[in-house]
Amino acid sequence: MDIVHRIGVKDATTEDVYAALTTIEGLAGWWTTDTTGDAEVGGVIAFRFIPGGFDMKVKELVPGKAVLWEVVEGPPEWLGTEVSFELKQEGEYAIVLFEHRGWADQVEFMYHCSTKWASYLLSLKQLVETGKGAPAPYDVMISDWH
Amino acid sequence: MDIVHRIGVKDATTEDVYAALTTIEGLAGWWTTDTTGDAEVGGVIAFRFIPGGFDMKVKELVPGKAVLWEVVEGPPEWLGTEVSFELKQEGEYAIVLFEHRGWADQVEFMYHCSTKWASYLLSLKQLVETGKGAPAPYDVMISDWH
Repeated sequence: MDIVHRIGVKDATTEDVYAALTTIEGLAGWWTTDTTGDAEVGGVIAFRFIPGGFDMKVKELVPGKAVLWEVVEGPPEWLGTEVSFELKQEGEYAIVLFEHRGWADQVEFMYHCSTKWASYLLSLKQLVETGKGAPAPYDVMISDWH
Repeated sequence: MDIVHRIGVKDATTEDVYAALTTIEGLAGWWTTDTTGDAEVGGVIAFRFIPGGFDMKVKELVPGKAVLWEVVEGPPEWLGTEVSFELKQEGEYAIVLFEHRGWADQVEFMYHCSTKWASYLLSLKQLVETGKGAPAPYDVMISDWH
């Protein structure tokens, strides 16, 4: 099962969004400030949050077009799943098609992560449009699970 | 295929959230101001937005616990799909488990609707917590598709 989302970043190019998805500084600007590691293909990026985090292996990078990660460390429901960003230009909008795919079961945690991804993707949009996103720990609290 | 989401409404009961899901006034406060119709079981609620809208047949209502709609009018990808809200109390939070289920194909429009649902569910949370949501046409614009 997959979580899917679509956002459009206004007055931006796919290269602008790609930079925010493929550099440690960019990622720290919308997902979590505690982002470290190697953002090249084959590298591992460590994303940390107050309750824990995820290690993502960078599997594929196509400049301005696509980013693919595999979850190599994290909660059991995430292990082995893939996170994919596809980018395309539509006029003045850079469109992001997002997938977090390969969930084994439609567990309650998946419902939570789906809403949370939406809010982080809107943070990505805000970062590229305005220069300032809302990464953890400054993210929107959506529930008791944060 | 399903879109799923989870939010928690703080300092609220499931009855508070249920009221926002089962009255015309409540629905108009978080999804779209242009909401009309019959919100009882068997009734049809018409939700209208600038580009169009949806008619939902109310299939099941369990006070404080569950709301189930069937899409009887709207875009072809939505026809026959179901929208479900399950409510439960977890301490000071009223939890909403949301499903928009039965999508035939994982089309780009589904990606858009997933992100859009998240933003409307956060509007529902805001409505119940503060008395003021962000229904269309005051909703967050997430892309060129609005």
